[in-house]
Amino acid sequence: MTRWAVILAGGVGSRFWPLSTPARPKQLLPLVDSEPLLANAVRRMAAIAAPANTLVLTNAELRDAVAGVLPQLPQENIIAEPRPSGTAAALAWAASEVVTRDPEGVMVCIHADWAISDEAMFASTLRDAAALAESTGELVTVGIVPSRPDTGFGYIELGEQVEGGFRVKRFIEKPDREGAKLLVSSGALWNSGIFCWRARDFLSELRKHTPEVATALDQHAMARASRSKEEFFAFVRPVSVDVGLLERSENVLVVRGAFGWDDVGTWAALRRARSPDADGNVVSGRTHLKESRNNVVHAEGDAVVLYGVENLVVVSRPGLTLVTTVEKSEELKTLVDSLPPEIKDK
Amino acid sequence: MTRWAVILAGGVGSRFWPLSTPARPKQLLPLVDSEPLLANAVRRMAAIAAPANTLVLTNAELRDAVAGVLPQLPQENIIAEPRPSGTAAALAWAASEVVTRDPEGVMVCIHADWAISDEAMFASTLRDAAALAESTGELVTVGIVPSRPDTGFGYIELGEQVEGGFRVKRFIEKPDREGAKLLVSSGALWNSGIFCWRARDFLSELRKHTPEVATALDQHAMARASRSKEEFFAFVRPVSVDVGLLERSENVLVVRGAFGWDDVGTWAALRRARSPDADGNVVSGRTHLKESRNNVVHAEGDAVVLYGVENLVVVSRPGLTLVTTVEKSEELKTLVDSLPPEIKDK
Repeated sequence: MTRWAVILAGGVGSRFWPLSTPARPKQLLPLVDSEPLLANAVRRMAAIAAPANTLVLTNAELRDAVAGVLPQLPQENIIAEPRPSGTAAALAWAASEVVTRDPEGVMVCIHADWAISDEAMFASTLRDAAALAESTGELVTVGIVPSRPDTGFGYIELGEQVEGGFRVKRFIEKPDREGAKLLVSSGALWNSGIFCWRARDFLSELRKHTPEVATALDQHAMARASRSKEEFFAFVRPVSVDVGLLERSENVLVVRGAFGWDDVGTWAALRRARSPDADGNVVSGRTHLKESRNNVVHAEGDAVVLYGVENLVVVSRPGLTLVTTVEKSEELKTLVDSLPPEIKDK
Repeated sequence: MTRWAVILAGGVGSRFWPLSTPARPKQLLPLVDSEPLLANAVRRMAAIAAPANTLVLTNAELRDAVAGVLPQLPQENIIAEPRPSGTAAALAWAASEVVTRDPEGVMVCIHADWAISDEAMFASTLRDAAALAESTGELVTVGIVPSRPDTGFGYIELGEQVEGGFRVKRFIEKPDREGAKLLVSSGALWNSGIFCWRARDFLSELRKHTPEVATALDQHAMARASRSKEEFFAFVRPVSVDVGLLERSENVLVVRGAFGWDDVGTWAALRRARSPDADGNVVSGRTHLKESRNNVVHAEGDAVVLYGVENLVVVSRPGLTLVTTVEKSEELKTLVDSLPPEIKDK
């Protein structure tokens, strides 16, 4: 079996404003250590696949920035999507690349903007999931053992146990608070977006269940004579792989993952993804804190001095400093949408 | 009567860190409007005395900076003290200047770092106090009608009423909370540091009561042959005019002042000295606030964005941003003393 690492690195985000911007989204920020999250992700996947077998999908506008942080990858393995087209299309194009180069290749798909606390367990779980995908020919998703009743994720209910995993009983959209508690206590898993499958099995299931993608796939992605990425992404209809395929297919297995996965969705989430100091603060850059607890401070611009404050998020970039609370940092989009251009894009 | 404005503009302060530094203390900061407090003070005293009759006393290190913000004053009216020597010495030297130039001159003394909300009432009260000083030959202090039981000021207890004012019954050092409440309810006034007296009356009282200053005064300040500012300040013993003279003299009157005086002692005090917006925020510089109340924001460096926060003090200067609470900003010296040099003097 040859494994292929497929890393989804598209998407823009306002949740890490003022550091994240369309030109420098979350996956290009050094949020967990001194490297961008994307570089963390590619390093992490070195345990799964060689650089020649690692594909990174991103927006056309980010292609150069992505290539800049990944000098170890062959240029042709960085695939620019000409427009946002949903994860089903991105993975379909990646699958078409894999089968073209390696008809039996198994894809191990992740997102570029996560934090993982136990890298060894992560790699071992993904290798097992890839082996399960190869031996069964099914679509294998890795569900995360929840550490809290989070309402920000979809959940996966487990069905019958099989050798090496479980059948998926049901995918559940983001629940409310009570629903999340019930799901966690019933043993449901977070739908992480980690997928393992043989590329040809995935394409075969897509043709059965996902007409939004299948038509463009066979006309523009698989047809050797007229293979055209631009036309494929122009014709494909945007849909997520969850809605467009996994919820429709019968051939989906789930493997339990317990390796400290976090999608680092907000500044506040850095308190989970990194180790707070004895006072509960998570800091990076030039900072000085006195009598201050449970803050997140990220100083890429001005040095930041905190004195006698709690539960704040303080972020500096050159020319601008944001001060908000851990709680309000979950709603940062509301702020960003309200900003005048001279502040927002400063 | 010729009035002389005497403005004390010495003193360093850490209470407005990170903006205030030894090279740029509070009186040189634009805290109340776009001008430095010292420029406010000199403009304010234009209602009392002409520029030729306005003396500003400051530290030797600050002389050039002070002269820079006061181009309208004759250079010789900006008097640099070679070392910190207490207000008694500073006012004694100023008095020696005044009597040398104008034997009957009446000094109206203030500090450079205040906020005044009713400038017309301020000028009118000081003119009345100067007239009282001239007509009685006594030392006249202006006591401020307290707006709150502040424990940060000394108080003046009123004695017998006289034409145009009161005798001083007693000066009281900074009280505790209960003491302050009792003083306010009994009609005591804040000891502001506003003094009016004929220069020769003041010097005469100094000779009676203040040997710390009187010896140096007669040897180095009044002796025409050997008049030397450097020697006067080298020999004088540091003492405040309150302790060294006013508390010892019987010839002290007090006039009630009600013109919105504030010594702007802390960042939090800006909420009193300036008009907060509808959300209770006091802001200056490039700022953007959303869902934020009762904050003080002063942005001389980075633009500052606040979102969903309350009762904070946020101050940016080029290269550094401070975040603290309104409450902790009263104890800023504790922070500043703890800072490593690369942050403190950044």
